[in-house]
Amino acid sequence: MKKTEGGVTAPKGFKAAVCAANIKYKDRTDMAFLFSETPCVCAGTFTSNVVKAACVQWDMEIVSSGRGMHGVVVNSGIANACTGEEGFRACEITAKAAEEKLNVPYNTIATASTGVIGMQLPVDKLKAGVYEMSGKLSDSKEAGTEASKAIMTTDTVNKETAVSMEIGGVTVTLGGMSKGSGMIHPNMCTMLGFLTTDLAIEKALLQEALSDVVKDTFNMISVDGDTSTNDTLLIMANGLAGNPVIDTKGEDYEIFKEALYTICRYLARTMAGDGEGATKLFTAHVIGAKTVADAKALARSIISSNLSKAAIYGCDANFGRFLCAMGYSGVNFNQEDVELFFESEAGELKVFDHGVPLAFDEEYATKLMSEKEVIVRVHMNEGDGEAEAWGCDLTYDYVKINADYRS
Amino acid sequence: MKKTEGGVTAPKGFKAAVCAANIKYKDRTDMAFLFSETPCVCAGTFTSNVVKAACVQWDMEIVSSGRGMHGVVVNSGIANACTGEEGFRACEITAKAAEEKLNVPYNTIATASTGVIGMQLPVDKLKAGVYEMSGKLSDSKEAGTEASKAIMTTDTVNKETAVSMEIGGVTVTLGGMSKGSGMIHPNMCTMLGFLTTDLAIEKALLQEALSDVVKDTFNMISVDGDTSTNDTLLIMANGLAGNPVIDTKGEDYEIFKEALYTICRYLARTMAGDGEGATKLFTAHVIGAKTVADAKALARSIISSNLSKAAIYGCDANFGRFLCAMGYSGVNFNQEDVELFFESEAGELKVFDHGVPLAFDEEYATKLMSEKEVIVRVHMNEGDGEAEAWGCDLTYDYVKINADYRS
Repeated sequence: MKKTEGGVTAPKGFKAAVCAANIKYKDRTDMAFLFSETPCVCAGTFTSNVVKAACVQWDMEIVSSGRGMHGVVVNSGIANACTGEEGFRACEITAKAAEEKLNVPYNTIATASTGVIGMQLPVDKLKAGVYEMSGKLSDSKEAGTEASKAIMTTDTVNKETAVSMEIGGVTVTLGGMSKGSGMIHPNMCTMLGFLTTDLAIEKALLQEALSDVVKDTFNMISVDGDTSTNDTLLIMANGLAGNPVIDTKGEDYEIFKEALYTICRYLARTMAGDGEGATKLFTAHVIGAKTVADAKALARSIISSNLSKAAIYGCDANFGRFLCAMGYSGVNFNQEDVELFFESEAGELKVFDHGVPLAFDEEYATKLMSEKEVIVRVHMNEGDGEAEAWGCDLTYDYVKINADYRS
Repeated sequence: MKKTEGGVTAPKGFKAAVCAANIKYKDRTDMAFLFSETPCVCAGTFTSNVVKAACVQWDMEIVSSGRGMHGVVVNSGIANACTGEEGFRACEITAKAAEEKLNVPYNTIATASTGVIGMQLPVDKLKAGVYEMSGKLSDSKEAGTEASKAIMTTDTVNKETAVSMEIGGVTVTLGGMSKGSGMIHPNMCTMLGFLTTDLAIEKALLQEALSDVVKDTFNMISVDGDTSTNDTLLIMANGLAGNPVIDTKGEDYEIFKEALYTICRYLARTMAGDGEGATKLFTAHVIGAKTVADAKALARSIISSNLSKAAIYGCDANFGRFLCAMGYSGVNFNQEDVELFFESEAGELKVFDHGVPLAFDEEYATKLMSEKEVIVRVHMNEGDGEAEAWGCDLTYDYVKINADYRS
């Protein structure tokens, strides 16, 4: 497997286009269209929030139907959640406009939205946007990059990546983009993520690989503990690489799954580090827990704690907060078994050893915590369970961004 | 039942004293001693965090032992959590100093601490403080008030209240004080709360009344989602009112329980409204849920959401965030059944009606949300379950207070 250039248009047969539809944002692109003329085997994971946006319900139907997917139309600015019947009609009209314009079967184009909840989409603007984008779809690297920018809301950087690998004697490429900055506490997947590949693979295996990988990547990040109504991760596989179709869990499946993990981990970490108002990526690495499930719960609890996040922002090695967050994670353990370290590019520092706080150099601790990624590493000393989770610091800017997000 | 003056020294036989022991804070009182010469029937609820502070474990032993309790020594500044063996010894030494000085049996004085986790208490200062306070215990109203001030950390106001009632032909008084501003997401009780009463009651009934009332009061508040290592709520009943001992759940028990509810609700709401950095009390009132448990989960999820809290700070009627928080609460419901209102002293405003967002006057919404208490009222329209929960807004000052709390 090797890193290649670009994102969603890196695999064969995937095109993208963007437009400025003026949905809520001014003077920037706010719609993206990702399209494959060849119908794609598809899989997806969606928010566990019982209040699901109209587009989530629209996409869940397509993914479960078994129909080949031809693409997805995404808009930023308005989430199309809590919008009743009118919201569903907006999905249908948008998809239909694309399906008719590009002459593909009905109900094969997904839709995804992100932005303010409880506001109706301006359907005429969406239709006009679809028509405009349908005429300028491109498989260039730049088209993929532009798509990753158009779907941003409060994100400060666009998120895209791609890798290639050898499967069945041919080169297979996997690309992806995602957005997400606030309302990030995924519990099935995360905000919006779109993955493309020219791999040939059976649908059930594609879904299994995606669901497995999501558990260790997108489901292990949190910005603010709020699980969105719109979380959507879609993968489309058009088979154009020409590899023998993957229909069992052999070596080819594992090669692909590793590539999928690489892409998802990269996008998830980038999303966490670009959390609303964030200045840092905040990683929890739990080692030696009784089980992997325990390690995951502990790691997620650490990076989800407001107090831990505020300490990370302040470069304050207030390790008690991390132990406190572990203590209410639902996992049972003895503090007398625990060792806790802070770690970054500047070095590492042990601050708690088997129930006893250690004296440490505050100046060194501050220096260590001033890096762009700060890792809290915890040794539970009670088993083999290991997990990582990713979040960000809690800053003034998080409050600023969210105190008046709609205006 | 009627409101009376004072706090923990309002009931007969309870004395208090404070001192400036210089534990971490400078130029302010940081220790309080609450004492009853008559041994007290006692009950308590404690943090569910598996990382329990040394003092929590100390108090749990006394409460479960059945021994009469004579008082509690409280310090602010250092939490005595994650402090190993040395932390336990600090509890023992502190209690023993008080027990010997006042000539009461060993292991009958509780201890409680609040402040930085993972730092050892200066035992000599604590002992000196206990000696000083033992010599100046007073049953004056002022002594109770001073105690409620000495236990504050980042609190901006002290919290105390008292009520009296007629039970068995005599006047019974119940007083209380509490502190808590950050790391507030109780799950058994809350930060530190101390209740005193001259009621005569059996231990098991006192515990049952306290545990019941806590579920609807202290367990329904959240400031930041962080369940502390130190949450402690103690009640001491010395029987000096002279009522016939309450030993069954009759009318007398109900009168007392109502008074207990009143005191706990007041302290809990005051604590939520004085959350770290808070400018407002943020109340969620859920009506018509399938069950009370559902109503509680929904209400707690609303007031715990960072995004909801930031919207409350910004006086932004961004109601989608409240629906989103309900959606990930773990409660199953249909958004098509839901009605959502904002309510305050300035009036009320319906913004969501059975799955459909309503147009509303933004100016009026902002005015309504600028009051000192903002209520989000939700009608689920699917049953009789009702609950309230209390939190506060998320502000710049919360981040400021917590980014460098230790210095």
